[in-house]
Amino acid sequence: MTVTGSILIGNEDVTTSSTFQAFNAATGQPFGPAIYEAGAAEVDRAANLAAAAAPAFGATTPEARAAFLEAAAEAILAIGDALIETAMAESGLPRMRLEGERGRTVGQLRLFAAEVRAGRWLDVTIDPAMSDRQPLPRPDLRRMNVPLGPVAVFGASNFPLAFSVAGGDTASAFAAGCPVVVKGHPAHPGTGELVARAIRSAVVSSGLPEGVFSYLPGTTHDLGGSLVSHPAIQAVGFTGSRGGGLALVELAQKRAQPIPVYAELSAINPVVLLPAALAEDAEGLGKAFVASLTMGSGQFCTNPGLVIALDGPDLDRFIAAAADAVSCAVPQVMLTPGIAAAYAKGVAALEQNPAATQVAVGLPGEGTAGTAALFKTSAAEFMADAALGHEVFGASSVVVAARDHDELKALLATIEGQLTATLHMREADNALAAEVLPVLSNRVGRVLANGWPTGVEVSHAMVHGGPFPATSDSRTTSVGTLAMTRFLRPVCYQSIPDAILPPALQDANPWHLPRRIDGTWVAA
Amino acid sequence: MTVTGSILIGNEDVTTSSTFQAFNAATGQPFGPAIYEAGAAEVDRAANLAAAAAPAFGATTPEARAAFLEAAAEAILAIGDALIETAMAESGLPRMRLEGERGRTVGQLRLFAAEVRAGRWLDVTIDPAMSDRQPLPRPDLRRMNVPLGPVAVFGASNFPLAFSVAGGDTASAFAAGCPVVVKGHPAHPGTGELVARAIRSAVVSSGLPEGVFSYLPGTTHDLGGSLVSHPAIQAVGFTGSRGGGLALVELAQKRAQPIPVYAELSAINPVVLLPAALAEDAEGLGKAFVASLTMGSGQFCTNPGLVIALDGPDLDRFIAAAADAVSCAVPQVMLTPGIAAAYAKGVAALEQNPAATQVAVGLPGEGTAGTAALFKTSAAEFMADAALGHEVFGASSVVVAARDHDELKALLATIEGQLTATLHMREADNALAAEVLPVLSNRVGRVLANGWPTGVEVSHAMVHGGPFPATSDSRTTSVGTLAMTRFLRPVCYQSIPDAILPPALQDANPWHLPRRIDGTWVAA
Repeated sequence: MTVTGSILIGNEDVTTSSTFQAFNAATGQPFGPAIYEAGAAEVDRAANLAAAAAPAFGATTPEARAAFLEAAAEAILAIGDALIETAMAESGLPRMRLEGERGRTVGQLRLFAAEVRAGRWLDVTIDPAMSDRQPLPRPDLRRMNVPLGPVAVFGASNFPLAFSVAGGDTASAFAAGCPVVVKGHPAHPGTGELVARAIRSAVVSSGLPEGVFSYLPGTTHDLGGSLVSHPAIQAVGFTGSRGGGLALVELAQKRAQPIPVYAELSAINPVVLLPAALAEDAEGLGKAFVASLTMGSGQFCTNPGLVIALDGPDLDRFIAAAADAVSCAVPQVMLTPGIAAAYAKGVAALEQNPAATQVAVGLPGEGTAGTAALFKTSAAEFMADAALGHEVFGASSVVVAARDHDELKALLATIEGQLTATLHMREADNALAAEVLPVLSNRVGRVLANGWPTGVEVSHAMVHGGPFPATSDSRTTSVGTLAMTRFLRPVCYQSIPDAILPPALQDANPWHLPRRIDGTWVAA
Repeated sequence: MTVTGSILIGNEDVTTSSTFQAFNAATGQPFGPAIYEAGAAEVDRAANLAAAAAPAFGATTPEARAAFLEAAAEAILAIGDALIETAMAESGLPRMRLEGERGRTVGQLRLFAAEVRAGRWLDVTIDPAMSDRQPLPRPDLRRMNVPLGPVAVFGASNFPLAFSVAGGDTASAFAAGCPVVVKGHPAHPGTGELVARAIRSAVVSSGLPEGVFSYLPGTTHDLGGSLVSHPAIQAVGFTGSRGGGLALVELAQKRAQPIPVYAELSAINPVVLLPAALAEDAEGLGKAFVASLTMGSGQFCTNPGLVIALDGPDLDRFIAAAADAVSCAVPQVMLTPGIAAAYAKGVAALEQNPAATQVAVGLPGEGTAGTAALFKTSAAEFMADAALGHEVFGASSVVVAARDHDELKALLATIEGQLTATLHMREADNALAAEVLPVLSNRVGRVLANGWPTGVEVSHAMVHGGPFPATSDSRTTSVGTLAMTRFLRPVCYQSIPDAILPPALQDANPWHLPRRIDGTWVAA
């Protein structure tokens, strides 16, 4: 499988009159062939093809849909090392990280396959008729979830596999029975095309209609705008910047028929160091914190950009250990020149902010390598200056020292919506932790203890989401099996003859689904 | 219990410098005491009180919350006949209808109580730690749903009990653990106050913080706008006009922190008469249709405002029977002079539309009584003129004749989002019904056969919702137990010590909840 630069609309390779170029993230040199720019015409073709495919794909059996997800996983593995090498060049991420990310991407598709087979997501609920009920009989009522229809997916730059063409948004939309049109990220178009071809091959080998998947690479805002505004598109998944995500939300609301946008926007992922934990292991925490902060050049949505603790000698020890670690941090190539420039600008703003003191800076780097940075401020100053709480995407973090428990709690109560919050605690911290936990859980999608927020498990219980501005919709997650509920809606079938009911609702239960009958769940 | 005209903020009766007046719907005469107008200051007090109550109310045990819902039901019944008489005067609806509606309202609160106790809504999902997993261990992950926070509820005029102060939005928000601030509908402020006092008494007798419920009557758009824009409000439930609902959606999106709005907007609820059903019982269907159309002066969200069938002698028989029934329809008082005027305007627009033929008109009425009206048009004309598909809230409907199966299906594919669609069919219609069913289910929240859309069961399988513009959010329902999921969001707890975990997630399962452990649901 080789990269051609084509746009993939259903089974067709499409070219246009305009192209752009991928770059090697480390060298800044052009990489791979010219990539054709998709535009409004390609959006229209892909979206209409998706709409045409939606009824048949939405009606596939759980087994057929699961097999398709598994075929996509196999096809991605079958690309082999070309995928890893292309992604390494385009993203600057190291081999081990990308091999891990491929494993995550493939595992995610397989987990959704298993979830589709389990059938719970259909939420089949049957209230049988009660023909003798007084004063009025109850009709036969049967409810199930149905797919929303074609979904537009905007991949992220920082996970060229797991949050991109075949990432969590695409996998969960497929699992829900929705065709997908991917707007390919311009930072990794070669990687994107290889994965897109793998998905296409799974569509073909699974005998599904071609409109189930299209891939539209491009660099323009117009491309994304056309896609979100197209009448056939029924929902949007997005991972990226706050500005970009909010622009799509606004477009989606302005449509004649508004549609949901699931946008992951920004987060600084506060880490709270409680006194006993800090006293016991300030140095160890400082080192571990910097390992989490600098991993992948800090380019994670869940990067710990804020550390909060009570002021005092233990916090000083933590800061000293963290400062040591930051000072030795070897700069890593960032994903794109744009991201590197934004990171440098964010760090410069903190350096120039009189309310923040720079306590350490990493080793200097060349080109687009990001130099780690650590700052310190007081809780009073942090609460007085919103700029100190802005996300700096990369390996920069701010340590906030609170005077006492009350100021600590007051500070936590002012923090805006986040993907995660972390507590470091020992048993002696339980009383304070119990007070702080509800405050944090009220502001985040995931709260964790004695770990670091980077590293997001793909599982049933995971929530990768959170209140605004972490995401545009706090009611969901973009990682884990629950993500597929984003692309479903309930429909009630009342007194419909069994002969024409969808199989999921038929009396004989041909799909062997768990069902809630008259209020009680019954296994298949 | 008597109506005082007060605003109810928590436990306090509040008055302002401005008042308005309720009217007797039948006579147009002033009814009851002057009602104090709530404004931005009252919104601020109520919303802040709700925010203060949210953590404690959100942490109540299922048993305590269920008992509160049941206490509210008891307190509503304890108002006795004063409630029915007040509602009759203010709404013009007959006693039997309002007694039925009270039963529905009370039954709804009790059903939510049972659902809260069953505990499934918490969606407790536990992925146990796998400390030996390679290449990385899995942490302990536990997910549950938490309430969004204070909810603003805008009641409907057409159900002064079941979709108003203690209606489905309020009941489901309470069930989810969210405090509620009701914007009282100015068409039934006396009814609203009586129910609000009943809820307040349940809050007090249940030992809950007073901010769990407040009631703000008023006539101004500013009141509703202030409420939706208040930072403490976290979600909105609305039943009313398309214009009003969309204005609230826009306000909610413009907030610094956007919030979800669940607005039920408009619907014409197409009824499709398939050939065999029509041939067998054209006259019976015509009569039954008009009974559904004119019930309650047609003032139902699910009123059948559109009938679709193949042209021919059977449809002529249906129209003749329906026209006979409409001609004898006795006008009924409408809810408000404004609704009556809007209805008359909608009917006049159809009368003046050259594409529609008036086939029958009901008996003339006095004052605000609504005279039934029936129109006919062709599928071609209907598809060419969107005005024929606009909702006319009241007892007016349009019969659309299609040339053949293809035109029938083409027409159905153009219909915008609806609350319901209805099929009348016999076994001989199965093939056509099987083709039409997916088209309809793609556009509605509920599809039913051989019945009429009016009459919405409150149960587990019900969906009272549907794609835009039926509602602002197709992923939900405003009736039935599923409605409470609108006010919840998931939170993941990772490696949190059992001692400080919320009870719902603790190993010992003190709330005896069903849980999904490592992918498998386990009964309590």
